[in-house]
Amino acid sequence: MNEQGMLAVVSGFSGAGKGTLMKELLKRYDNYALSISATTRSPREGEADGREYFFVTEESFRDMIEKDALIEYAQYVKHFYGTPKEYVLNQMKQGKDVILEIEIQGALKIKERFPETILIFVMPPNAEELKRRLIGRGTESMEVINARLKRAAEEAEGMEAYDYILINDKIETCVEAMHQMIQVQHNRASNNTAFLSHIREELKNI
Amino acid sequence: MNEQGMLAVVSGFSGAGKGTLMKELLKRYDNYALSISATTRSPREGEADGREYFFVTEESFRDMIEKDALIEYAQYVKHFYGTPKEYVLNQMKQGKDVILEIEIQGALKIKERFPETILIFVMPPNAEELKRRLIGRGTESMEVINARLKRAAEEAEGMEAYDYILINDKIETCVEAMHQMIQVQHNRASNNTAFLSHIREELKNI
Repeated sequence: MNEQGMLAVVSGFSGAGKGTLMKELLKRYDNYALSISATTRSPREGEADGREYFFVTEESFRDMIEKDALIEYAQYVKHFYGTPKEYVLNQMKQGKDVILEIEIQGALKIKERFPETILIFVMPPNAEELKRRLIGRGTESMEVINARLKRAAEEAEGMEAYDYILINDKIETCVEAMHQMIQVQHNRASNNTAFLSHIREELKNI
Repeated sequence: MNEQGMLAVVSGFSGAGKGTLMKELLKRYDNYALSISATTRSPREGEADGREYFFVTEESFRDMIEKDALIEYAQYVKHFYGTPKEYVLNQMKQGKDVILEIEIQGALKIKERFPETILIFVMPPNAEELKRRLIGRGTESMEVINARLKRAAEEAEGMEAYDYILINDKIETCVEAMHQMIQVQHNRASNNTAFLSHIREELKNI
């Protein structure tokens, strides 16, 4: 069976509860590694290089683009954010299933390049619940909340391209479901071609 | 989330332990239904109509073919065997995940017609183990065993077309893995298009 780690991309509307889910998944199982992004923005207080982000200069970042050292990257306002390939592939080689939190456009780019990537879209049970959670945070103005809801409606256009839809109603069942979506991927026939060739040869020569 | 049942096709070499696995799966979880085949052969002692098989006349069988009432069918020696569509669809409508044990050719035909079908191929850990199990049964001559192994080698050509490979080493972990392969299918984006359209509309109108 495939011992190499899998790559799972998690997306979802702001307020869907991705962060909590992933934190819980990593706490519960030790086979996961969280992908760490590279960014050209400066570290904020409490952030450490190699923990929240790899903090790099714009020159280094452009160099990484040049050398195809990023799985994907994007520019927000004036800063770059990207996923260093080496870190992800190293973790996978060590058998870790790597989780990457990223928005839809980046997710689809990754799937195109690495078709065995698992795309998981985390959703609230319904739109009202999403609104309720965003308001419940109490940290954002109604203007920001409405902008987030509008953005959710736009993002929703890409949902069909995902492999799995995960409705985040009960965290307990949801974490287990996410774990299973990633674990069964190890058993995909397409992830076990070497084993299949091997047993085919064995059967011919038995 | 999708409340309709899924269709899972289980194939595998003779001696791989499919039967035991499926029996255990059905014992452990009540969301499964086993598909019952129709056949033109006569019932053997202890077999009941609608339990082991639906026993039908050749005329009825040909009539079912004519009316597209079979998901797939095949002829072995002089008898027909087929999967009645109505029974499978009814069980699925009632929310049951239907398991169908069938050989590779039939499995691929079903996948072509119903792309959301989950194809699971059950394998022994290696060829030697398969041979050992076939000999261990003590019911077949070496000639029959060698014929089975030869057939396994031929069947092995189709394995890549399956969704999942399930290596049957420990029954306990194997039953759980099979359960998960089928359960995560409920979360496939492609199985939840109605829900996705619905939440998209909700988001637009919130």
